[in-house]
Amino acid sequence: MELAERLLKGDRRAVARLISMVENREPEAFEIIKKLYSKTGNAYVIGITGPPGAGKSTLTDKLVKKLSSKGKKIAIIAVDPTSPFTGGAILGDRVRMSDLNTNPNVFIRSMGARGHLGGVSKATQGAIKILDIYGADYIFIETVGVGQSEIDIVKTCDTTVMVMVPGLGDDIQAIKAGVMEIGDVFAVNKADRDGAKRTAREIDMVLDFNKSDWRPPVELVVAVENKGIDELLEHIQKHREYLESTGKLIERRIRNSKFELIDLVQQKLMSILFDKSNKEELINKLSKDIVDKIIDPYTATERIFNEIKMD
Amino acid sequence: MELAERLLKGDRRAVARLISMVENREPEAFEIIKKLYSKTGNAYVIGITGPPGAGKSTLTDKLVKKLSSKGKKIAIIAVDPTSPFTGGAILGDRVRMSDLNTNPNVFIRSMGARGHLGGVSKATQGAIKILDIYGADYIFIETVGVGQSEIDIVKTCDTTVMVMVPGLGDDIQAIKAGVMEIGDVFAVNKADRDGAKRTAREIDMVLDFNKSDWRPPVELVVAVENKGIDELLEHIQKHREYLESTGKLIERRIRNSKFELIDLVQQKLMSILFDKSNKEELINKLSKDIVDKIIDPYTATERIFNEIKMD
Repeated sequence: MELAERLLKGDRRAVARLISMVENREPEAFEIIKKLYSKTGNAYVIGITGPPGAGKSTLTDKLVKKLSSKGKKIAIIAVDPTSPFTGGAILGDRVRMSDLNTNPNVFIRSMGARGHLGGVSKATQGAIKILDIYGADYIFIETVGVGQSEIDIVKTCDTTVMVMVPGLGDDIQAIKAGVMEIGDVFAVNKADRDGAKRTAREIDMVLDFNKSDWRPPVELVVAVENKGIDELLEHIQKHREYLESTGKLIERRIRNSKFELIDLVQQKLMSILFDKSNKEELINKLSKDIVDKIIDPYTATERIFNEIKMD
Repeated sequence: MELAERLLKGDRRAVARLISMVENREPEAFEIIKKLYSKTGNAYVIGITGPPGAGKSTLTDKLVKKLSSKGKKIAIIAVDPTSPFTGGAILGDRVRMSDLNTNPNVFIRSMGARGHLGGVSKATQGAIKILDIYGADYIFIETVGVGQSEIDIVKTCDTTVMVMVPGLGDDIQAIKAGVMEIGDVFAVNKADRDGAKRTAREIDMVLDFNKSDWRPPVELVVAVENKGIDELLEHIQKHREYLESTGKLIERRIRNSKFELIDLVQQKLMSILFDKSNKEELINKLSKDIVDKIIDPYTATERIFNEIKMD
């Protein structure tokens, strides 16, 4: 349990090591999290998400720099899309260009968005717990994408900042429909570009349909010039106060825990199917039979399920 | 079985009705697919994917118009991001602006990307089967996003066209790493914009790492002006010939069936957890206990799993 002690003492190399172990699904890492689980719950988790090209990394850097100058201990997890079939980031970890790399109060880590065989965010969720135990005041989860991976990451966060940008074309329609429930705070970055105000207005209009007590603010930001960063931090702080004063922070964390539990149950089922009870052979045979039209996928599913239950 | 007969006769209203039934998980729809499953396998499924703002809809329209002028029967499924928590597209189906709407050889449908409680593409996969039985020669699956939903949709396709666009900024790095294994054919759309050739070159460089027999081509396209569309169709056709002549089409469809099967098994597990054996109460209690630090998520997972197995 040497690693556990080092983690509790705030040893950054122990943090890095444990996150790698979580990524590799080494049971020891989960044992350590289990043992130290009572030390979690202090970190505030902020998701930064939005479409490609929105400038999320720069924005995150600016927010983190501000917070770190106030003496806060911060972690950034940059979630990268990874290979769908091999499960690993092909080009290796993206090197995050940031002058925060040398800041002793900021821990930065790139992680792949998905694991083995469809598991999505187990590693990210594990990493959050490790960073929470480590003593981070804030954990930023930065993710590229509009869709499933983003949604899954959001389910691990207390406050989610949706970063939009002018010039998304027709897809703005689809994005707006998809993200309305995701964003707690909206930033329109690159606001010095044409169409920024229109984009902000369009988002505002969609948010008018929002019936919740919290009306997400929409802030114009030029991250590279540090414009709007203070305001954005204030919005995040206000959202946190809102969640805390209404008891909704607990509610949200319970909801997130539920998503994580369901995810873990699914992953355990997968590991039983593939690692333990050797159902892979049956699945492979049935997959071929489906293509040969010997069986349909729904009947095949019944057959697999009956076999699992018999074990 | 009136609906089944109408489907076999190519009745478009029956198709629309059946897809709605699949979305609503009505068992009758799956019974009809089971019954007519031997009629599947003729449609060629083409995925069109890429980041927001890449102009996928326009590109799809142009490709479909070309194919339809050759007398082909075509279906387009536009997969929209939907609300992560309610599971439904909040703003309703996006109305697809297209002059294909009145073309009797083209069937267009918007669908939500995800179902209830984490199920992703069951409805899409069901819709593909219905359209296949209906007699579509080509089924286009168009999806917004870079990440999980895109990857899941790709798992239903024979050929996937990855649509890129100049001006994605730093995120191009992450996207490239994520998409290398997804795209069979790459289009750089809006190629009249600055940086198009550079984007194409960057993609090309990443593809040089690809060790497969099939080297994905990268085509410069200006969809709104119909430029590069013929070339793109040719690439798709060549990829199809490659898959067919090498036996890889069957291999790919078996792989896709395997993904679908696993997905269906997961969804069945979820329906058992939530609909049948009333484990939702236990999950809710454990979720709360996790936040209260009474139990950690890994131990909670074990507990749920033990209960399922005892049923």
